[in-house]
Amino acid sequence: MGLVDNVLDGSQRALARLATHVENDDGVGREGLIRLYPHTGKAHVVGVTGPPGAGKSTLIGALIGELRGRGLKVGVVAVDPSSQLTGGATLGDRIRMLEWQSDAGVFIRSMASRARAGGLAPATAGMVHLLDAAGFEVIVVETVGVGQEEIDVSRLVDTLVLVQVPGSGDGVQLLKAGLLEFADIFVVNKADLAGAEELLRGLRSMVGFSAHQRPDWVPPVLRCTATDGVGLDKLANAIVAHGEFLRDSGRLHDRRCAIARAEIADYVNAVIRQRLSAPGAGSAGVEAMVEDVARRRLAPLTAAHTLLENWEDPGQRNDQSG
Amino acid sequence: MGLVDNVLDGSQRALARLATHVENDDGVGREGLIRLYPHTGKAHVVGVTGPPGAGKSTLIGALIGELRGRGLKVGVVAVDPSSQLTGGATLGDRIRMLEWQSDAGVFIRSMASRARAGGLAPATAGMVHLLDAAGFEVIVVETVGVGQEEIDVSRLVDTLVLVQVPGSGDGVQLLKAGLLEFADIFVVNKADLAGAEELLRGLRSMVGFSAHQRPDWVPPVLRCTATDGVGLDKLANAIVAHGEFLRDSGRLHDRRCAIARAEIADYVNAVIRQRLSAPGAGSAGVEAMVEDVARRRLAPLTAAHTLLENWEDPGQRNDQSG
Repeated sequence: MGLVDNVLDGSQRALARLATHVENDDGVGREGLIRLYPHTGKAHVVGVTGPPGAGKSTLIGALIGELRGRGLKVGVVAVDPSSQLTGGATLGDRIRMLEWQSDAGVFIRSMASRARAGGLAPATAGMVHLLDAAGFEVIVVETVGVGQEEIDVSRLVDTLVLVQVPGSGDGVQLLKAGLLEFADIFVVNKADLAGAEELLRGLRSMVGFSAHQRPDWVPPVLRCTATDGVGLDKLANAIVAHGEFLRDSGRLHDRRCAIARAEIADYVNAVIRQRLSAPGAGSAGVEAMVEDVARRRLAPLTAAHTLLENWEDPGQRNDQSG
Repeated sequence: MGLVDNVLDGSQRALARLATHVENDDGVGREGLIRLYPHTGKAHVVGVTGPPGAGKSTLIGALIGELRGRGLKVGVVAVDPSSQLTGGATLGDRIRMLEWQSDAGVFIRSMASRARAGGLAPATAGMVHLLDAAGFEVIVVETVGVGQEEIDVSRLVDTLVLVQVPGSGDGVQLLKAGLLEFADIFVVNKADLAGAEELLRGLRSMVGFSAHQRPDWVPPVLRCTATDGVGLDKLANAIVAHGEFLRDSGRLHDRRCAIARAEIADYVNAVIRQRLSAPGAGSAGVEAMVEDVARRRLAPLTAAHTLLENWEDPGQRNDQSG
């Protein structure tokens, strides 16, 4: 399969083509990922999350510049449909940040909404693996920290950066509770706005309060003004430092195991939903089971166990060689 | 098993106790649901969703009064952690609306955050089945229409009511795109506020624009001021009318099949996540598989298929008699 070899050889065109297959969750994409997977695990995967309006796209744009200045190849996967880096999921990759278009050391891709068919989390994980295998050294995943699905995505990263802005009291509340405790680095963006000091103080006291839970890594609380490029060097330093911490402390393997758990479960979920998704998509046995549950002849939990115990591959499985 | 029989006999105390087991997703809860399931399917399940601040709890409180006045038994499951009906997930069922506490025809329950362990959607579905079997004729499910998980929950209902308020331009945008097309009834709450007419017009033109997609049910757009009890009779009428439409048109069975598909998939997902959730939770085989994926010796998709094809019940399955 030429596409996979060309991606490993550094072809940007092959990369863009395979990315579309991964996004579409088709046979070429699935087989490609299985073949590329042994070449992954080298990249530092960094999640950047925060409420809408926190300026994540601008921050990531500035961060790309900072990391490129350090000679690192940077991939970006925008899961945020409102991302200004990619023009959102609808416009897809056509409207990318023009300034990076001619730089082979930067690859930016949005997850289009069609990727939701097979599940956003596995599609995002696949895109990260693809960029990892293609040799990108830092991969930034941009998400909105609002829904459960976004939390699922933010669990697929090595380092999670949580971005907040002054005066977004409601925005903070909209963030799912679980996100705060997962963050490795806090950023107060638009730190020139009123209320920045309060927000910094609040975050620092929160971090101090919960420091006993993670005694070996106290999440730094940084101030940035991404539009002016202020604070980006410190953010890049903190990201690199957290990567080194994970490696030196042996925590990286723990994280990678946690990611593996989440990713396997996400794939199983996607496979199951596909089988159950719509009338006619499943086998006659599955359809009869759905009918029995709808007619109250079979309990849903019993049906779930029966489905798992009588799992048959309907020939959708791909070649797993390589 | 006395608890299940007592629920079927109408015991409120047994109902409250079994609800806790269902919420905890423990053996008693799971077995209870399997035994009660044949007694479900009679209730009209109504989802009420909308952004935070739309006044859903007040609206539901007034709706309970309206439906009780028509002699209907009403159950409420609050998935919204900010619900003022239940005091939110943290305070649980202790702080319920006092006015209904002595009325055996009303049962209000919040889904505590602990229910998330086994998945919010299956836990909510279980609670709905429990109230259905216990004889509640209308079951209202209150959710915040923000995240994917909330959409998953809102797909488990017969009738979906979408609540919006004037001037919440941002709130509307925060709603997931998929929600608008799923709504069967639109409510503009706080219709005495400025901007109500615009919102009503906007929703009505949107409904008119997409009427060709669902020619047999054009979602009504209603105005309410829940705090003053204005418009509740029309909302109750619309809910009853949609229930009759589903029954008379034969669409109810289609909906119940769609709910069955979602529910089976949710349970499989919960079972898989439990098996994969944490070090030591799974079998030695599962742990070795996670390690192989983390070390890049096995691709996640391959692991997912292997897990499905070699599924073994670790004895966690419950007695499925009854």
